[in-house]
Amino acid sequence: MYDIDLNHYTEVVDKALALRPQIEAAVDKICEEGYSNIFFIGCGGTYAHSLPMMYWLETTSSRINAYSVIAAEFMAMGHKKFSKDSVCVFSTRSGNTKEILAAAKFCKEAGARTLVYVSNENTPIYEFADYIFQSPAEDPNLCEAIYSYSITLLARFMKNAGEFPKYDELVEGMSKLTPYLIRAKEQYDPFCQDLAKKFKDVNYHMIVGGGILWGEAYDYAMCILEEMQWIKTKSIHACEFFHGTLELVEEDTSVILFYGEDETRPLMDRVSNFVNKVSKEVTVFDTKTVELPFTDPEFRKIVSPMVIYTITERLSAHLAKERNHPLTTRRYYRQIEY
Amino acid sequence: MYDIDLNHYTEVVDKALALRPQIEAAVDKICEEGYSNIFFIGCGGTYAHSLPMMYWLETTSSRINAYSVIAAEFMAMGHKKFSKDSVCVFSTRSGNTKEILAAAKFCKEAGARTLVYVSNENTPIYEFADYIFQSPAEDPNLCEAIYSYSITLLARFMKNAGEFPKYDELVEGMSKLTPYLIRAKEQYDPFCQDLAKKFKDVNYHMIVGGGILWGEAYDYAMCILEEMQWIKTKSIHACEFFHGTLELVEEDTSVILFYGEDETRPLMDRVSNFVNKVSKEVTVFDTKTVELPFTDPEFRKIVSPMVIYTITERLSAHLAKERNHPLTTRRYYRQIEY
Repeated sequence: MYDIDLNHYTEVVDKALALRPQIEAAVDKICEEGYSNIFFIGCGGTYAHSLPMMYWLETTSSRINAYSVIAAEFMAMGHKKFSKDSVCVFSTRSGNTKEILAAAKFCKEAGARTLVYVSNENTPIYEFADYIFQSPAEDPNLCEAIYSYSITLLARFMKNAGEFPKYDELVEGMSKLTPYLIRAKEQYDPFCQDLAKKFKDVNYHMIVGGGILWGEAYDYAMCILEEMQWIKTKSIHACEFFHGTLELVEEDTSVILFYGEDETRPLMDRVSNFVNKVSKEVTVFDTKTVELPFTDPEFRKIVSPMVIYTITERLSAHLAKERNHPLTTRRYYRQIEY
Repeated sequence: MYDIDLNHYTEVVDKALALRPQIEAAVDKICEEGYSNIFFIGCGGTYAHSLPMMYWLETTSSRINAYSVIAAEFMAMGHKKFSKDSVCVFSTRSGNTKEILAAAKFCKEAGARTLVYVSNENTPIYEFADYIFQSPAEDPNLCEAIYSYSITLLARFMKNAGEFPKYDELVEGMSKLTPYLIRAKEQYDPFCQDLAKKFKDVNYHMIVGGGILWGEAYDYAMCILEEMQWIKTKSIHACEFFHGTLELVEEDTSVILFYGEDETRPLMDRVSNFVNKVSKEVTVFDTKTVELPFTDPEFRKIVSPMVIYTITERLSAHLAKERNHPLTTRRYYRQIEY
């Protein structure tokens, strides 16, 4: 496959999955001490990747209160549900993102417990982490690392609250995930190669997702197509699509559907029915087409954000090639002051 | 002013504000009975207009748990925080929006208490409302009615929880609001007329907002520019702007800033600093420029979503005229089956 080192990919995902005993020990200690609520605190991609965790929590737990907040806004607003009894969950590739550092410092100094996944070793974030979970990752595989961490972490909290008895089964299945993700990439690679050729000069895409995949639709639009390819997008929730954005759809409008396997799948069918009546440029990424090391629909739902990220990464790679626009080029971010 | 009947506008806003005693009685009764949490349940505009209420709540109350959910997703997902002890808050202009009817029916049948603001009398939603609050409104003034209702309602819940002692002062000030909103419209009308001429052929706008105005940025992009004018948009949160969307900004990119008066205002300054370095097409709507019947910064923050809606309504009206595209024209919504 183009622009991917599968040995390296395997190492990255396996090392992230191998953080499990550390995560379990941290969560068990926190549960023993007690806590009031959980804050997922992120920005951009790390905020986006916390939204599926919120969806999963709200469809599973009646006992755990959690919030997903944007770091800079959290700092400015003075969130009244936050206290020293809160558990604060971060992830950062670089370990030096300003907004994340500021929020982690604030939370730690307020006496709350901070848990941080970081890719880069011995970076400034270490100073503000009560619990640090480090494994190597780069942008094209970061999501796998973040999800390995946050799925394990949240599953453990829910297990300890008596709300997720299938914990052992889930993590056992997840430990076998890596080769399945690689096969998913191989399965979608030719499709993405063709798609990238077709998309080469398309300057606007709608990306639609719902349920546990909404955060991924938001992320792919903003962090990949906009940030890394400078292509205009509208990410729109499968339900909200019908309250405005649908009016824009024409025969040649590119609409990309992120189909998952959660309770909201029928809501994606509604979008699909509509857009296929109007547009000839509808693209589907469907996690259901991918083989996984478990068949329990609940587990497939839980890892579906990881699966959609893994397969759409193939589109990003081919787009960069076809458009002669490397995924790492930025004209403004970290280039100029604001 | 173009396309607005000020007598009618005054009647609409005053009648909405006059619902206060009914709202107070309902909330007081519910607080006496007890409740576990509050669900704001909406879709499109009514979902968007609940987001400011969530921001206000999270910056004010440590005791009340609330959720803002999209009606169709709420129904599909099975939200584990919802129970018969929940309070369910709806608003609907038509009184017959399918998704709202289905959710209100479900909530009422589950034994939860349902509160509904509706513009159209004796519509199907009445059947599923434990408490109905009706006052006339149409799209261009609906937001004033919805906010009069939801601000009063949430303020009363927080007062009763001992977390909003300034309640009487707020509602006293709000009862004088109508002429100030009209003056705000008059103040922004010439600016919006010029802007509409300039925007006539612009086919893409970024709309940036944060804090209590994020929902309004989302709404103006989707429900006005996309739905009513068929113009492409990206609504983007003031903090999230820097994690992708900024890379798209060029000299001629239209960026519309919704400036409010909450804790996140400095985060808008950061966006403004950046976009003014790159684009020559930056537009600012700032609630701070508008006179209001109170000076307490907290009250100004609370009504700022209403103020931004009121002044941007002038842009919508002039855009419709300049573009010869009535705000009521739909090609798909409620026109075809999906």
